[in-house]
Amino acid sequence: MVVAVVGLGAMGRAMAERLLSRGYELRVWNRTRARTQGLAAPVCESPADAARGAEVVMTSLSDDDAVSEVLLGERGLLQGLDDGAVHVGTSTISHALATTLVRIHAEHRRPYLSAPVVGRPEAAANGQLVMLAGGEESLHECCRPLFDDLARRVVRFSNAPTANLAKIVVNTMIGGTIELLGEVMALGEKGGIAPSDTVDLLIGTLFDCPAVATYGRRIAAEQFEPAGFRLALGLKDLELALSAGDELRAPLPAANVVRDHLLAAMATGREDIDWSGLTTVVRAEAGLSDGERQAVKRP
Amino acid sequence: MVVAVVGLGAMGRAMAERLLSRGYELRVWNRTRARTQGLAAPVCESPADAARGAEVVMTSLSDDDAVSEVLLGERGLLQGLDDGAVHVGTSTISHALATTLVRIHAEHRRPYLSAPVVGRPEAAANGQLVMLAGGEESLHECCRPLFDDLARRVVRFSNAPTANLAKIVVNTMIGGTIELLGEVMALGEKGGIAPSDTVDLLIGTLFDCPAVATYGRRIAAEQFEPAGFRLALGLKDLELALSAGDELRAPLPAANVVRDHLLAAMATGREDIDWSGLTTVVRAEAGLSDGERQAVKRP
Amino acid sequence: MVVAVVGLGAMGRAMAERLLSRGYELRVWNRTRARTQGLAAPVCESPADAARGAEVVMTSLSDDDAVSEVLLGERGLLQGLDDGAVHVGTSTISHALATTLVRIHAEHRRPYLSAPVVGRPEAAANGQLVMLAGGEESLHECCRPLFDDLARRVVRFSNAPTANLAKIVVNTMIGGTIELLGEVMALGEKGGIAPSDTVDLLIGTLFDCPAVATYGRRIAAEQFEPAGFRLALGLKDLELALSAGDELRAPLPAANVVRDHLLAAMATGREDIDWSGLTTVVRAEAGLSDGERQAVKRP
Amino acid sequence: MVVAVVGLGAMGRAMAERLLSRGYELRVWNRTRARTQGLAAPVCESPADAARGAEVVMTSLSDDDAVSEVLLGERGLLQGLDDGAVHVGTSTISHALATTLVRIHAEHRRPYLSAPVVGRPEAAANGQLVMLAGGEESLHECCRPLFDDLARRVVRFSNAPTANLAKIVVNTMIGGTIELLGEVMALGEKGGIAPSDTVDLLIGTLFDCPAVATYGRRIAAEQFEPAGFRLALGLKDLELALSAGDELRAPLPAANVVRDHLLAAMATGREDIDWSGLTTVVRAEAGLSDGERQAVKRP
Repeated sequence: MVVAVVGLGAMGRAMAERLLSRGYELRVWNRTRARTQGLAAPVCESPADAARGAEVVMTSLSDDDAVSEVLLGERGLLQGLDDGAVHVGTSTISHALATTLVRIHAEHRRPYLSAPVVGRPEAAANGQLVMLAGGEESLHECCRPLFDDLARRVVRFSNAPTANLAKIVVNTMIGGTIELLGEVMALGEKGGIAPSDTVDLLIGTLFDCPAVATYGRRIAAEQFEPAGFRLALGLKDLELALSAGDELRAPLPAANVVRDHLLAAMATGREDIDWSGLTTVVRAEAGLSDGERQAVKRP
Repeated sequence: MVVAVVGLGAMGRAMAERLLSRGYELRVWNRTRARTQGLAAPVCESPADAARGAEVVMTSLSDDDAVSEVLLGERGLLQGLDDGAVHVGTSTISHALATTLVRIHAEHRRPYLSAPVVGRPEAAANGQLVMLAGGEESLHECCRPLFDDLARRVVRFSNAPTANLAKIVVNTMIGGTIELLGEVMALGEKGGIAPSDTVDLLIGTLFDCPAVATYGRRIAAEQFEPAGFRLALGLKDLELALSAGDELRAPLPAANVVRDHLLAAMATGREDIDWSGLTTVVRAEAGLSDGERQAVKRP
Repeated sequence: MVVAVVGLGAMGRAMAERLLSRGYELRVWNRTRARTQGLAAPVCESPADAARGAEVVMTSLSDDDAVSEVLLGERGLLQGLDDGAVHVGTSTISHALATTLVRIHAEHRRPYLSAPVVGRPEAAANGQLVMLAGGEESLHECCRPLFDDLARRVVRFSNAPTANLAKIVVNTMIGGTIELLGEVMALGEKGGIAPSDTVDLLIGTLFDCPAVATYGRRIAAEQFEPAGFRLALGLKDLELALSAGDELRAPLPAANVVRDHLLAAMATGREDIDWSGLTTVVRAEAGLSDGERQAVKRP
Repeated sequence: MVVAVVGLGAMGRAMAERLLSRGYELRVWNRTRARTQGLAAPVCESPADAARGAEVVMTSLSDDDAVSEVLLGERGLLQGLDDGAVHVGTSTISHALATTLVRIHAEHRRPYLSAPVVGRPEAAANGQLVMLAGGEESLHECCRPLFDDLARRVVRFSNAPTANLAKIVVNTMIGGTIELLGEVMALGEKGGIAPSDTVDLLIGTLFDCPAVATYGRRIAAEQFEPAGFRLALGLKDLELALSAGDELRAPLPAANVVRDHLLAAMATGREDIDWSGLTTVVRAEAGLSDGERQAVKRP
């Protein structure tokens, strides 16, 4: 199968490498050419060039603007997509743009499958992503072998905007869990419970899951660099959740709290740390500054 | 070992039955005598009477007022506790009262171990509670056999108020998770994702833990009766968290959201449903009323 | 002075009539031609046509999209604006679009003054608006006679985006005050203070100002129709505030609360009532339903 | 008329001096005797002593605990109040305690009028307070001359708890207005509007009232010392509002935001500055630190 990968950020690159290692014939494009170095695949001049001759074109881009530009811009994807070639969009984009993309692809009679991914680049490299795929039944079947090589699990949705919303839902839940961890860990710490003990306590009662364990331990260790997921991207995703809430008329008051703390972290230059670092704002509000832990030991 | 159980609500009763089945010699007291019926243990006239002759006195009461009354009231516990008898307080009480109880027991030279429990009455009946025990080292050792018969896990803290705060921390985290579930499930539903699919999605990504699975499925099924944990008690616990935050100077903005939704549910007469029913308020704010689900099926 | 008025909603129409009555030579355009009826001014075919020959072109449009379309669309304003003619934008638009408009006008060498207005259509009809005008010094001077005929007060800012932000600031403050009124009036009512007494109390202490008096009395009377300012427009303005906050990195937690209540009102079909009707959501959360007032009389 | 003033904090002392200057025969008591110095009135040994022989006993105390102690403690007020003497409680206390006080006074057949005051000590010194008086009709009449000497305005309520709630309502509205000012002033500042210009803008549109003018100018000047009303007391009052909300089942989401910011200010040692200094937390979250104003001048 000939696959084009358009966008080689950390995630796009990891997916490209995984596909190469599984024997796919690959073609790639990236805005900054330097990021294509060392990849054993032909580097194309434009998204349109990358699309020509590919059966599947996967886009992996940072935000709504990048997706619009790559798709609709001069020498954009839509000008190169062959008859029958499927566009698989893995970027986390707004519910509104997802809806627009469905219309545009239909107008151009090009099949479109939205397939945002959950997982870090390492998961992509090992074929352990979770893919949230939304589109027509036939497209799901057509992409199945490809997705099976990338993901440990594929969740199917009947249309593209729903798959995008699902991704927003997962990230909102993670962001909210980080906020809650930050709050209860600060409360505990001020009352004499070491943050790592709070995490153990939660895991030992009703919260034995990756979200609480992974982020809880990071927060307890105050290890926010290097970022697994940049705080600036976390803010983008929370804003996608809130704008979906505006559009669909669903208030999200706890998500607001997460957004505000991400924003406060941004306002003081912390955009490049891991998004679990929003808890530094929670700690500051409780009068806890970095490195002055008040923790006690358990007997 | 002679054990007195003071307070026979759902949890106290379940613990008493568990202890009987494990061969303890029991003595019980309850404010409303009717609740002692059918229990194969002598029923005492007052907390003081129950305490006399017991090596361990466990209290299992609903709130701060009940604990103060039972301990300090006329014919209260402190007037009956033998020299060397240990008071084990399993109630969820405020951080402030926990601190006061330490002082009062010390003045009366009576050992006190705070040991709030996590788990439902069924867990107590099967010895599967998690106990958060706080007090002096020697007390932990002394109560170990008793606790091993009640709990699958005992987390030790070096003092009583810390154990109480730990219980508050766990319940705040659960309440916050219910709120987040309510928000993302409502958002998903308005965008065409069935609530049960949202729960599956979360479990299938980073949230495979009892808190998300148990409460998520309850919320998806809108099954709030009978209550596992009454909404009115959930509000009490969130208020304990917020007053601990006031006392320790730790703002808890996401916990506020939970409290407000519990309060709104109370304001419209829903105090007796399960506390996961706070999500009915979240759904109402999104214009979703009971029974008009907009869910779509996945392919 | 020849003035074109582009956009004849309630506010545009009122400004147009005011200018006619003050002797200006007017030319008008509106998307829906029906709204131009009865106005003693030539009706043009397009924004470009309206602009041709005018010394000042005032736009009064509902949102960012309408402004972009009228300015940049086919036969849009920019294609008709004469050399030296000033575009005065009175619409409430986003801080981001305001910044873009400055750049676009500069590229086309057309002078642009942003001048959003505070006040209701009746104020426009009587020349009693407050205008928040932002742009170069010379433009302020050039528009002074025109503005003096429309406004009781002109506040000057040194650039266009700042004037727009100022409008957003005023409306956020009003929205927040409505929310606060809703909260304290509900609290008072549940404790036995009639809503109108709460309003009198506030006015009689530190809040003797139009925001509290006008909106407070409307809320006390539950008189939300006809709308002075539609709830849907209020939501738009709060969203402008929050997106300015995102852009400028300024969290606005109280504004979130306002937005959420407006959104909840929208979710249940209340978009056409006055925006002070967001307090119906506050009352519902307190278990107060319409028409079951619990007020007591003062002695 | 013989009046006892019990509690000589800033407000109690100012009321005492005002009454002396108007010719009342006074008796005073204060826990810390030093505060009675320089006051031309007999200093009593206990609240009971102060009460004996007085026709009206005014209490002016800091919080619920102080009121309970002074009223019910050893040699407390209730043991000295003469037959027919009226207890006028001017302290801001909880709705719950206000309800209890009514019961206790009734049991002792002592008339009780709750009369919390709005205004600063200077207003008391000049007879310019606003008094919120709640109790039976006959008590209102009996205290009228006294109140007329202290207040520019007396608002009557039919019972004591309602008057207390009214005071809480006013202070919640002020706290909420401070928060809103902090938010919109920070937003404006980050977009280039000087804080003092934002205040002028609000006053010049719909907010020409003491709450916005007084607090707005203080915030713009960052003049938080000396405190007009200590931040720690502001937090106490917001907590009274929220606990009244809990008791009466009325969620107050915007009040939560105020409380959290007061709490964050307390957590970093700002308890003694003016409560309008909660805006320092709002500014910090927007990345604005003290003294690095980004203000622009208006043309």
